[in-house]
Amino acid sequence: MTAEMFPKEKTIDLRKKHIGPSCKVFFSHDPIKIVRAKGQYMYDENGVRYLDCINNVAHVGHSHPMVVKAGAEQMELLNTNSRFLHDNLVQYAQRLQATLPEKLSVCYFVNSGSEANDLALRLAWEYTGHKDVITLDNAYHGHVSSLINISPYKFHQLANAEQSKSVHVALSPDLYRGNYRQDHPDPATAYADDVNNLIQKAHEKGHKVQNKNADKLQQCVCARVLPYQCTVPLPHRHVHQAGGLFIADEVQVGFGRVGTHFWAFQLQGEDFVPDIVTMGKPIGNGHPMSCVVTTREVAEAFKNSGMEYFNTFGGNPVSCAIGLAVLDVIEKEDLQGNALRVGGYLMRLLEQQKEKHPLVGDIRGRGLFVGAELVRDRVKLTPATAEAQDIIYKLKEQHILLSADGPHRNVLKFKPPMCFSEEDADMVVEKIDQILTGTRNLAIVI
Amino acid sequence: MTAEMFPKEKTIDLRKKHIGPSCKVFFSHDPIKIVRAKGQYMYDENGVRYLDCINNVAHVGHSHPMVVKAGAEQMELLNTNSRFLHDNLVQYAQRLQATLPEKLSVCYFVNSGSEANDLALRLAWEYTGHKDVITLDNAYHGHVSSLINISPYKFHQLANAEQSKSVHVALSPDLYRGNYRQDHPDPATAYADDVNNLIQKAHEKGHKVQNKNADKLQQCVCARVLPYQCTVPLPHRHVHQAGGLFIADEVQVGFGRVGTHFWAFQLQGEDFVPDIVTMGKPIGNGHPMSCVVTTREVAEAFKNSGMEYFNTFGGNPVSCAIGLAVLDVIEKEDLQGNALRVGGYLMRLLEQQKEKHPLVGDIRGRGLFVGAELVRDRVKLTPATAEAQDIIYKLKEQHILLSADGPHRNVLKFKPPMCFSEEDADMVVEKIDQILTGTRNLAIVI
Repeated sequence: MTAEMFPKEKTIDLRKKHIGPSCKVFFSHDPIKIVRAKGQYMYDENGVRYLDCINNVAHVGHSHPMVVKAGAEQMELLNTNSRFLHDNLVQYAQRLQATLPEKLSVCYFVNSGSEANDLALRLAWEYTGHKDVITLDNAYHGHVSSLINISPYKFHQLANAEQSKSVHVALSPDLYRGNYRQDHPDPATAYADDVNNLIQKAHEKGHKVQNKNADKLQQCVCARVLPYQCTVPLPHRHVHQAGGLFIADEVQVGFGRVGTHFWAFQLQGEDFVPDIVTMGKPIGNGHPMSCVVTTREVAEAFKNSGMEYFNTFGGNPVSCAIGLAVLDVIEKEDLQGNALRVGGYLMRLLEQQKEKHPLVGDIRGRGLFVGAELVRDRVKLTPATAEAQDIIYKLKEQHILLSADGPHRNVLKFKPPMCFSEEDADMVVEKIDQILTGTRNLAIVI
Repeated sequence: MTAEMFPKEKTIDLRKKHIGPSCKVFFSHDPIKIVRAKGQYMYDENGVRYLDCINNVAHVGHSHPMVVKAGAEQMELLNTNSRFLHDNLVQYAQRLQATLPEKLSVCYFVNSGSEANDLALRLAWEYTGHKDVITLDNAYHGHVSSLINISPYKFHQLANAEQSKSVHVALSPDLYRGNYRQDHPDPATAYADDVNNLIQKAHEKGHKVQNKNADKLQQCVCARVLPYQCTVPLPHRHVHQAGGLFIADEVQVGFGRVGTHFWAFQLQGEDFVPDIVTMGKPIGNGHPMSCVVTTREVAEAFKNSGMEYFNTFGGNPVSCAIGLAVLDVIEKEDLQGNALRVGGYLMRLLEQQKEKHPLVGDIRGRGLFVGAELVRDRVKLTPATAEAQDIIYKLKEQHILLSADGPHRNVLKFKPPMCFSEEDADMVVEKIDQILTGTRNLAIVI
């Protein structure tokens, strides 16, 4: 495979012709063609180097040689399904288990975060016998149809969105812009009470309308809770009391990204153990793979449904070899420690920007999962959406890849490969500083 | 990665401990540990060679060097998401399109047949505005929750199965054991009429109960229709007249396996063009990837819903490089031609077995997708389920891997890697002959 076959214009034309128009490119007015990447850097067809602040999937760094070698060697040897015994599968399950609370001991290997979250729902539905789900406002859990139902981030995009009656959307525990903020005496309890209220309401409706429909309730929160520094154990208790299960979606935030812990849910303390954990994006450094881990009880209940679970590609020896190599690299290169150090450093730099530029309203995050929310007014919190887009585009011109996220698309979101360095942090924040300094007068004109 | 790390017993123990108990192994009483594979052969931890008659996923042969090389080289260079422009993506889409009718020009790349079929449903739902689905009895379309709903093969396994009201199960067009058989004057029309009746009934209910629910109807049939040699255009016309779309599920049977054509739906004639085609298993020779192809009209309707479609791993440069290599090998080694020749040869050998052994009731298939149905009585068609299992186990002892499928698990199913040879066919049929000769007296005792 050569690095480039077509001139960029032809690539764009062919893409328009043959790729679904719902599949967007970054910077649609002038998209980037990347032909190779290494570590935290990507290179376009002219050899121009971009600093990558967005690709959390390339977790241990783009094209990491240890991961590439493990994949290539195993491909040469064997790639088949998990109906045959293979050591990579069990060794990988064992290694993953060692990072988790003992109770979470049973793995299902699948191909994507979406497949993982869909299977998590199936496990929970089977265990509890009920279908109701509590999800957080603005949450995103995947692209298959069952998950769009529980992803307000997605179903709010639909022209004629229709929320399923068995899906209950809880307040996003956002201390900056949410219903209960920093000035609230006890926001954790307030947000937990919201979950409890949803449970009660569902129970009432359930008893009146369908009798058994609402006993079971789940929550899929970690990815979204994290930036908002809320605590989970309280709603977790409410969910358990209602006979529900708690699913921790670690697709975005797992594998050491939060710095202090290997899994984001572990930020909630040692006593907090979700019933199901789903993994994805970083697990194979870009290779399509993912995993669901649960307790023996949930796994046995699923088995007792009588339905076999078979996933053609899930848990194949190549995916597992790659997964093992990713774990090795995280350990060997102390990438979790790096996330803690560099993430902390990046947050301090951004805090300085907040002091300097009124547009920077809030800095939040953990490890190398950091958000900087831009606002036009620090009291009204008017989202600075256009300004965020402007920064993203200007950074691109300076060969830095950053994105804006959040319901108002006004949060600069840093989730770089975990080998991101302090020098990289210096570079991106310096450029942001220059852009903010340049646009300050502009912002007043708007 | 070494070929073996643990003694087999330890692998089994770890699997029991850490892998979901719903995930079955082949030959559960004495599972096989495979450590390497090449072409149509797999090797266990002691170097024993097995002839592989079942792994349709290893389409161009296990560990094909051209596929391995393409994957390894691209992994070394770049593996990232499709929000960046990349030539592999568009070149692969172009190459796939060239195998399909011109109308089927828009691709969505995903990670598995299940993701493909779920997306196909989403495309159809969006285009038609309705949710009803016609599926065939015994059909299997994937393991995510939306697909279990339309897979009688799966939902019949559930202890307390509940068929969704928007799913309509059509008769399986089985000329051997189905409602309308070889002796029927016009089974194609009879089976098509069944589809039409389902449409009418759904319309009636729809008008009475929900008014708009049943205008849209789909059918996912190719994989199951094939072995039964029924014709599709007639039900296709009924579905189109009702404003529905026709989805051809090529996950099992695509990529030249049927011998005469590259896609199984092409067996229905040049005029027959499905609205959506889904691909999977063989597409990446074991690498997790898959694709949905549809028309511009359906793709635009999906876009107009306002929801972006993003799949983290789908269409990454490594998957596309592997996909391209698979297409190259099929062409270079004329594997479609091989499927036609060897598949025809295999069917002739099996027909001879049918003449010789009363247990062999029916031989059917196309190319290297062949079934031999075993019955205890050729008039009553009593399924010879135990006998089929016995053959499978005895073949395993002789180092041949074959499986039994179908609602009664009495159909010996051949779907080997496409490099399967006439000598391989001779070998497996000779062994079957020996086993059938040996068990004939036994069968009478049963």
